[in-house]
Amino acid sequence: MRVLILGGDGYLGWPTAMQLAAAGHEITVLDNYLHREIAQASNSQPLIESPDLVQRAAIFEEVTGKSIDVVIGDCTDYQVLSEAFTRCRPDAVVHYAEQPSGPYSMSSYDAAHLTINNNLNSTFNLIWAVLEHAPDCHIVKLGTMGEYGTPDIDIEEGWLDIEHNGRKDRFLYPRQAGSLYHTTKIFDTDMLWFYVRTYGIRVTDLMQGPVYGLTTAEVELDPRLRPSFHYDDIFGTVVNRFIVQAVAGMPLTVYGSGGQTRGYLNIIDTLQCVDLVLQNPAERGELRILNQFTESLSVNELADRVQAAGKHLDLDVQIEALVNPRKEAEDHYYNPAHQGLLDLGLEPHLMTDDVLVEMLEVVHEHRDQIRPEVVLPRVRWAR
Amino acid sequence: MRVLILGGDGYLGWPTAMQLAAAGHEITVLDNYLHREIAQASNSQPLIESPDLVQRAAIFEEVTGKSIDVVIGDCTDYQVLSEAFTRCRPDAVVHYAEQPSGPYSMSSYDAAHLTINNNLNSTFNLIWAVLEHAPDCHIVKLGTMGEYGTPDIDIEEGWLDIEHNGRKDRFLYPRQAGSLYHTTKIFDTDMLWFYVRTYGIRVTDLMQGPVYGLTTAEVELDPRLRPSFHYDDIFGTVVNRFIVQAVAGMPLTVYGSGGQTRGYLNIIDTLQCVDLVLQNPAERGELRILNQFTESLSVNELADRVQAAGKHLDLDVQIEALVNPRKEAEDHYYNPAHQGLLDLGLEPHLMTDDVLVEMLEVVHEHRDQIRPEVVLPRVRWAR
Repeated sequence: MRVLILGGDGYLGWPTAMQLAAAGHEITVLDNYLHREIAQASNSQPLIESPDLVQRAAIFEEVTGKSIDVVIGDCTDYQVLSEAFTRCRPDAVVHYAEQPSGPYSMSSYDAAHLTINNNLNSTFNLIWAVLEHAPDCHIVKLGTMGEYGTPDIDIEEGWLDIEHNGRKDRFLYPRQAGSLYHTTKIFDTDMLWFYVRTYGIRVTDLMQGPVYGLTTAEVELDPRLRPSFHYDDIFGTVVNRFIVQAVAGMPLTVYGSGGQTRGYLNIIDTLQCVDLVLQNPAERGELRILNQFTESLSVNELADRVQAAGKHLDLDVQIEALVNPRKEAEDHYYNPAHQGLLDLGLEPHLMTDDVLVEMLEVVHEHRDQIRPEVVLPRVRWAR
Repeated sequence: MRVLILGGDGYLGWPTAMQLAAAGHEITVLDNYLHREIAQASNSQPLIESPDLVQRAAIFEEVTGKSIDVVIGDCTDYQVLSEAFTRCRPDAVVHYAEQPSGPYSMSSYDAAHLTINNNLNSTFNLIWAVLEHAPDCHIVKLGTMGEYGTPDIDIEEGWLDIEHNGRKDRFLYPRQAGSLYHTTKIFDTDMLWFYVRTYGIRVTDLMQGPVYGLTTAEVELDPRLRPSFHYDDIFGTVVNRFIVQAVAGMPLTVYGSGGQTRGYLNIIDTLQCVDLVLQNPAERGELRILNQFTESLSVNELADRVQAAGKHLDLDVQIEALVNPRKEAEDHYYNPAHQGLLDLGLEPHLMTDDVLVEMLEVVHEHRDQIRPEVVLPRVRWAR
């Protein structure tokens, strides 16, 4: 299969490229290093500096003998994307090319403007490139569980049957997100659904929860192939922040009451999910929505798990409550469905003690590079 | 009251500006003539050429002694909008500054790209200008009934209480539109709702149906003050097309079976609605959504009405079915609520014989300017 990966330099884009190339697929990655650029501009560099995409592809080829075709360019420029389609002739496109940080999108006018325009135009261009070059191509779009927010009813996989005044219809599940970034992903889904039902393209929208983990099969071959690890308040997830705080001897900072519950998954399972949907594409004219996570955890439960894992490394981990910099429900109902990917064959790798201990160990090796000043909240939702 | 009107050169923007100025409000209008530009570029000029905004304001001042402050500029440029806020210091902003044509948004990549970027960035900049300059300012945003599409359940005013698996919550009414343009209005509503609940701004979103009519109180003072009248397939509504076809001796072209039903309103009632919501602003932290139309009619009913009105002018009006260039339900359930504006005091002016006869008469005066070649569909949804 020929697969084009948009955002191939990212935390998920690069491991996806490696795994698919290792499995024998022909892979082209496209990236404009926007994420590196805005991470640097907001003083949010990752713990370990990654080689650039061209260097990574060279290392990968060195250790596996398999090549990954690299295109450096911006997919919000239609010409760039169009040329990548001509070059790759993809059977499928995996779309990770979005500004992915909620806090970044809430940090300033410019950051919000970039988030909206980058995310919408990358998705918009992708749709048009498929229409022009490869109408049968399967779009695999990374959405987010954050599109749903935290409604007081069960979350279904993308769609909801609604009965109202004695009549029934089926709709996209109503979504209400907690940051501007997450709101742009709602726009993406609405736009994809519009073009799916109008032009009959085929799309899988993966509503993914926060991903954790630093190791995939290909990382074992060469540590320089490790995915990026952000631990700051802007680009780091709560799991990464807790891991770094535990290693650095800082208390784990729980925002508010800590009851915020989300569906998490291991990076290994992200790769598994993407592989499963590539093998089982959506139909023409179908927007298939799958909720991509393996277990729901509250922030308090996460803190407890990291604290427990720390004991294996003799870390004395403290937990501390912090005024919540975000505007979000702290104690809420949360019951999202996630059967679709299990039905396709997903075998979950859960957040065990072993997994957290391994993350702690990797970060421990790099503990000298931790910059404690970027871990606590620098962006607040309130004005 | 000081009111800033974005898109003040448009079919609704200009009459709104005149009516509010006539009533004693201090009015600033902002427009970049984008609509004139793209109408010209797509060979869709209005029936009667309007003086430009500066000229119109001069004529209005000549006949009423009241001034309207004119700013020519693009509100997708934040600096322009920011300066307009500083100059006007608005208590309210009426936001008409969007590319308003479904067919235009479906005509090409460039048109679709312009529609998304213009509409989202104008709304986005408006939100930020309010936050920066006038946090208490009331945003009156023109939405569209087209956001809802044609669901098989009753359409409520913006919100829906949903019961699912024995639990309940309230959501934005699920929306699914029939063109990319209408989809951008869904994005607008979602974005406004995000910033309303995050930053406590006050917003009224008027979900308006197709508007008809050529005459408002101020037009009686000088015919050069008449709103623009588009009758082509791209910028003209079905009512305008039928009126022109009746006058030109062309059959009224009904797309498909003609069962497509929408909520219509007279331009006089648009002005009344905007005035009512300005007098009764939304609360801080409230997104108030009102469905703005006065009567639901199918395309077949419209055709019959125009045919009947034509008899008063001795016009022999024929009706003809045409393959539908759009992708839409042609026979569907349609029962939208519209009580909110009636509760605020709206007194509907319905689409009577007299109203249609007057439109026919105005168009008849200008029948030599009709270009029949732009009336039939030039844009098709199918690829």
